[in-house]
Parts: sequence; C-alpha cells; structure tokens
Amino acid sequence: MNRIFFDNAATTSMDNEVLQTMMPFLTEKFGNPSSIYSYGRETKMAIESARKNVAKILNAHPAEIFFTSGGTESNNTAITASVRDLGCKHIITSQIEHHAVTHAVEHIAKQFQIKVSYVNLKPNGHIDIVHLEKLLIESKEKALVSLMHANNEIGNIMDWHIVGNICKKYNAIFHSDTVQTVGHFPIDLRNTPVHFITGAAHKFHGPKGVGLLYINENVRINPFIFGGGQERNMRAGTENLYGIVGFSKALELATKNHDADKNHILEVKKYFYDQLKLNIKGVDFNGDVWGQCLYTVLSVSFPKTEKSEMLLFNLDINNICASGGSACASGTEAGSHVIRVINYNPNQITVRFSFCKHNNKEEVDVVIQKLKEVL
Amino acid sequence: MNRIFFDNAATTSMDNEVLQTMMPFLTEKFGNPSSIYSYGRETKMAIESARKNVAKILNAHPAEIFFTSGGTESNNTAITASVRDLGCKHIITSQIEHHAVTHAVEHIAKQFQIKVSYVNLKPNGHIDIVHLEKLLIESKEKALVSLMHANNEIGNIMDWHIVGNICKKYNAIFHSDTVQTVGHFPIDLRNTPVHFITGAAHKFHGPKGVGLLYINENVRINPFIFGGGQERNMRAGTENLYGIVGFSKALELATKNHDADKNHILEVKKYFYDQLKLNIKGVDFNGDVWGQCLYTVLSVSFPKTEKSEMLLFNLDINNICASGGSACASGTEAGSHVIRVINYNPNQITVRFSFCKHNNKEEVDVVIQKLKEVL
Repeated sequence: MNRIFFDNAATTSMDNEVLQTMMPFLTEKFGNPSSIYSYGRETKMAIESARKNVAKILNAHPAEIFFTSGGTESNNTAITASVRDLGCKHIITSQIEHHAVTHAVEHIAKQFQIKVSYVNLKPNGHIDIVHLEKLLIESKEKALVSLMHANNEIGNIMDWHIVGNICKKYNAIFHSDTVQTVGHFPIDLRNTPVHFITGAAHKFHGPKGVGLLYINENVRINPFIFGGGQERNMRAGTENLYGIVGFSKALELATKNHDADKNHILEVKKYFYDQLKLNIKGVDFNGDVWGQCLYTVLSVSFPKTEKSEMLLFNLDINNICASGGSACASGTEAGSHVIRVINYNPNQITVRFSFCKHNNKEEVDVVIQKLKEVL
Repeated sequence: MNRIFFDNAATTSMDNEVLQTMMPFLTEKFGNPSSIYSYGRETKMAIESARKNVAKILNAHPAEIFFTSGGTESNNTAITASVRDLGCKHIITSQIEHHAVTHAVEHIAKQFQIKVSYVNLKPNGHIDIVHLEKLLIESKEKALVSLMHANNEIGNIMDWHIVGNICKKYNAIFHSDTVQTVGHFPIDLRNTPVHFITGAAHKFHGPKGVGLLYINENVRINPFIFGGGQERNMRAGTENLYGIVGFSKALELATKNHDADKNHILEVKKYFYDQLKLNIKGVDFNGDVWGQCLYTVLSVSFPKTEKSEMLLFNLDINNICASGGSACASGTEAGSHVIRVINYNPNQITVRFSFCKHNNKEEVDVVIQKLKEVL
C-alpha cells in the first residue's frame, strides 16, 4: 500500500536534483569554508554563490542573507536581536504564531522584562489591522511587531505590505516568520517593508537542518550564537555546507516551477475540498480557505465522535499522513493553539492536510474513501 | 598532483560508511520526527537510536545527550545556561579557548554584568591548577569554570578529572569544550566530574552542521533556542535528521577503530616531527608535544623570514593544506590568539599541522621536501 503524504507543511521530501547538488560537498569537497587554502576557498565560494542565488531570488542584497540551522533559530535570532540590540521594549504579536515565535517572545519578554501585546484576530483568522494600529499608537516604547506571513495550520496569508507600512509609520521593527512562504510565494524583499524574515529548506523540498535569516540592511544587530567569524561575524559555527548548497538549489527549483506547482497543488486542494463537502457530513473548514490563503494547506474540522477522535490514528493505519496541527507541537496533549484561538468548537476535531507537487487527485480519492470508512 | 590534507583539526572528510548510513534519511525516510504517524515515528526512532548509541559510547544516559547544530551552539548553550539558569556569577576560563567559548563568555559576562577571570597558563600551554584553585577559593560567587579538554591549536590535553574535582570542591559548574576530543579520545562521562561537554561530528569524519551537548543529569537548564518540543523541550527546531544519524555512526566508527587509528596517526606525527628537526633549521614546537597532547595535532614554529611569512600561501600552491591556527579565525589578520598567549615570539611563524587516519609518511616526505624548497 503506497503511503499518501498529506503533511507537507510539516516537512517535504528532498528533490533528487537538490541531493545531487549537495553530493560533491558530502564527499570530496569537504574543506572548512573558513580555511584560507584552495580546499576551503572552493567551499567558501559554494556558500557565497548560494547566498547570491538566494538573494537574487528574494530580491535582496547578498549581505542581507544569512544561513542558520533552521527557521526556529532564525526566528529566535530576530526576536532576541530586536529587543537586545534595536531597543524594542514592547512586542506586538499574535496568538497564532508558530511556537518558534511565541516561546521565543515569552522568553525574551521575561528576560528583558518587557510587555507583550497580542493583536486581535478576526473569525477567519486574519489579524485585525485596526487593532494593530491602535496597539502601535498606544505604545509608549519602540515596538517589535512579529507576525507570520502565512499561518502553518490554517494557511492564512497576511498582507505584509499593509502591516509593514503601519510598522514604518510608528517606527516599529517588523519581523515576519515566512517559514511557510519562502519557496511557496514570490517574495520581493526590496519592495517589502520588513526587517527580518526567516525560512527553512525542508519546507520546500530541500534539506533539514538549514535555515535562512534575512536582515534588512538598515538594521545592525549582534549575533545570537557567538564564536568564529562565519557568516560575516553574524552566525558563528562551521557552516552546514551541504545544507546551504541544498537550500539554494531547492529555492531555485521551487521558484522556477512555482506557477506550475501552484496551479497543480491548488487543483488538488480544490478537489479535496469539493470531495469532502460532497462526502463527509458536517465537515467544516478553518481560515480564509479560498481568500488570502496558502494553496498548500487545508484545515478541516470534522464533527466530534468516538470515531473522529481516533481519526489521525486510523489514517496512519491506512498509510495516510496528516496532522492535528504543527508537527513541532505534536505529541503534546494540548492540541492546536491556533485552532483553539480562532475557532474553538469542542464538538469538532481538526485535521490539517497539506499538499505538495507530488500529490494528486487519485490520492485524494483514496483519502476520501478512507475517511468515509473511518468516520 | 594529489592534495595533502594536514588540517584535520579544522574539518575531516566524511567516511563513506557514514554517508551510506545517512542516505535513506536524505531520500525516502524524510518524515518530520515530531509527527505522530509512522513516517515520523521511523525518523524519531532513528534519532532516539542515535542518542542511545552516543550515550553508550560516552558512558552517559541517553537523557543527558542533546543534538544541536554544532560545537559552537553547544558551547553557547552551556555557557548561557550556567549563568542564566544555574546561578553562576563568575566565569573562570582561559585565554586559549576556542572563540566559540571566549566570545560567548564575553557576551554573557557583559549581558549579565558578571566577572570573568583567566587562569594562568604554564609555558607549555597547560593551565596552572594551583592558580585555578586560588581563583575558586577567592570567588565570592558561584563560578562557572569553562576550560577546554584539548586545545585545537597546540593539542594540549587537560586533566579534566583534576579540574572537575576541584570544581566539585568549590561547588562550581564545570563546562569543557571537547570538540577536539569527542571521537578522538575515550570519554567516560559516568566517571568524569563534568557538567557540560560538547562535540561536532565533522571533526571525526562525520557531517558538518550537527553537534553534541552533554548535560549532566544533575543540572536542569532552560533551552537556548525556544520553539517546538524537540530534544525533550531542550533544543527547538526540526531535527537535522541525517546529521544526527551521521553523528552517531561517525562516533561509532571512530570509537571502534580508535586504537589502530591513534597508533597510525601518532606514527605520522612522530615521523613528521623527526623529519622537521632533521631538515628545517631553527624549527620549534608549541605545546606539550610528547606529553599530554592530541596525537592529531602538531604546532610548528619556523624562524620568521620573508619566505616563511608566505609559507601557508606557498604550501597551498603546492596543494598542501595546513593552517595558521583555528579555521574559525582564519582570514582575520589578527593571527592566532593561542600562540600569542603561550609562546609569543615575533621572530617565529607558526603553522598547525593536524592529521587523520588517511594521512601517511609518504605525504610527510612530500611536505618536508616542499618545506625545504619553500623556506
């Protein structure tokens, strides 16, 4: 029985072309990029070439692109630096951020004894822009606004131009967790009013263990991890060479095929949505499904029954992968903090299905069939 | 012309067996280890099996082993946590630590406004134990002692049982940067009085971008990177799955072949030393070369001349890789902070040669010949 992987917001399979690009650096090209001899220079060049490539795709300067160990480290760096180095004494965020943001915010707020405000959310999960501006108007101190570009559980995409311009107006630092949009959404940083964005290669068919941090050239921060002079003194530690090369290649492929992939995935999502409505009684959807939303994510709520409470388990037995929320929070008993905040209905069980270019309608048919059997 | 790689303290080539162990996780086994379905459980199991394997080799509990993005992050975590969570208000360290320690110490000391003391060094580069005890006796506050197990530039190995027992006596936290000894030295953590040790797989023929942090079960700290519940809530971020699997395999191979590899490398080092003395006028050596010292490292000082000042450059032209000091500090114009402290002679040029199991005496002959030509 073939596995059906409908959990691509958690992680994706690595493209073979990405792996092939990494292979020389996993074998013969192993020099430490900080070494000054030819063996080191060739790997240093590979990293700088990856940086240029990523910068070009995101329309940023290479000097604004930093490689880290992943999205979580990148988010921690941006939040820490905004408070520690940029004078932010008030954090404005939302209750539906990824834990990499919420827990970092909680820690930094406690450590620096600063205030955290949460922007109101609309029933469809979008942030209340009027409330955001109100919070900024009332803020007596310089603020850090940390709001994710696209939500990893319901898929909602924020209009970051509107948010960024409001931040600008009130001299706030704007950090956006873009882990779900880098590689899935055309990003043009030169024309986006944002100070920090973040990414993780494994969300777009690249390797795990490598991330992106964009730092706008107008802000100057200190490192989060101290040590050697790697990443132009901004992120110490011997570089994850293959990871960086893989990040660049994966982003390149994702960008090159973006339109075709998007259209294909959107069709799968639409078909799944239609089939769910047609076949599953009482099915419901979270977020701005057909509005400003990721084409990759569909958050589905089923009426709560003894059977639906065992849904993920039964899908797993049938080799179907989906999740109750963020993978990073799986295994905890608390359930999804996102669903709890925007659409808490104790009589519903929510499952996130998330798609990639490898999924198709035949898989949807199998999943619908299994859902009908199980529920 | 074959490349001669005599810079194995900077990084090593990855063993093919390690890469083969990683390959399934770079291809079909890509599930997010935090996901609860079978696809995630199989990768979670791989990580937990790696943890058990590493714990067994180092004679620790699996619950004391944490995987990070590298030695630098591990050192930053231990130092940050000791001050932030364990009440250390005085850091005792040395001036010959790796920058991952010195720069992290400087940052934390500044942030928490605490005192840093530097233990005296003997002419051979070993720390002055009497002075260490004096510093601890005089310390009015709980201290963190951060002293590396083996120095990456001169190879000196500290007796960490003596140091650890002194720390115990004065209720100090003991962190030891073991990046140069994990995989090269038999470590028995159950019988070593240390709270934190660190490691990096790429120093012993494993992958870059993955590190080890050992936290003794008797200390409880908070994370350094906040977010998801990975690594039992101690290190957030989707795991570098292949890296972790590779770390474990590389450590396993290094341990299995330790005695044979050590004997072989020691012979290469001894032969190189003898040939240098025989062939290069005025040659000198740094550290406790034939005492308590890594078999992998030989720090050589040449009389300063116009020619020796261009030595690394000329070795590189001849496809010979060696370094002026730590790779992490290469490219900076400051020179080695280690050599400057223990044996500063403005009339000498110092080069670190460091060996691995793949090196041999024939390579030494070539290097000696080139040195004679160049100098």
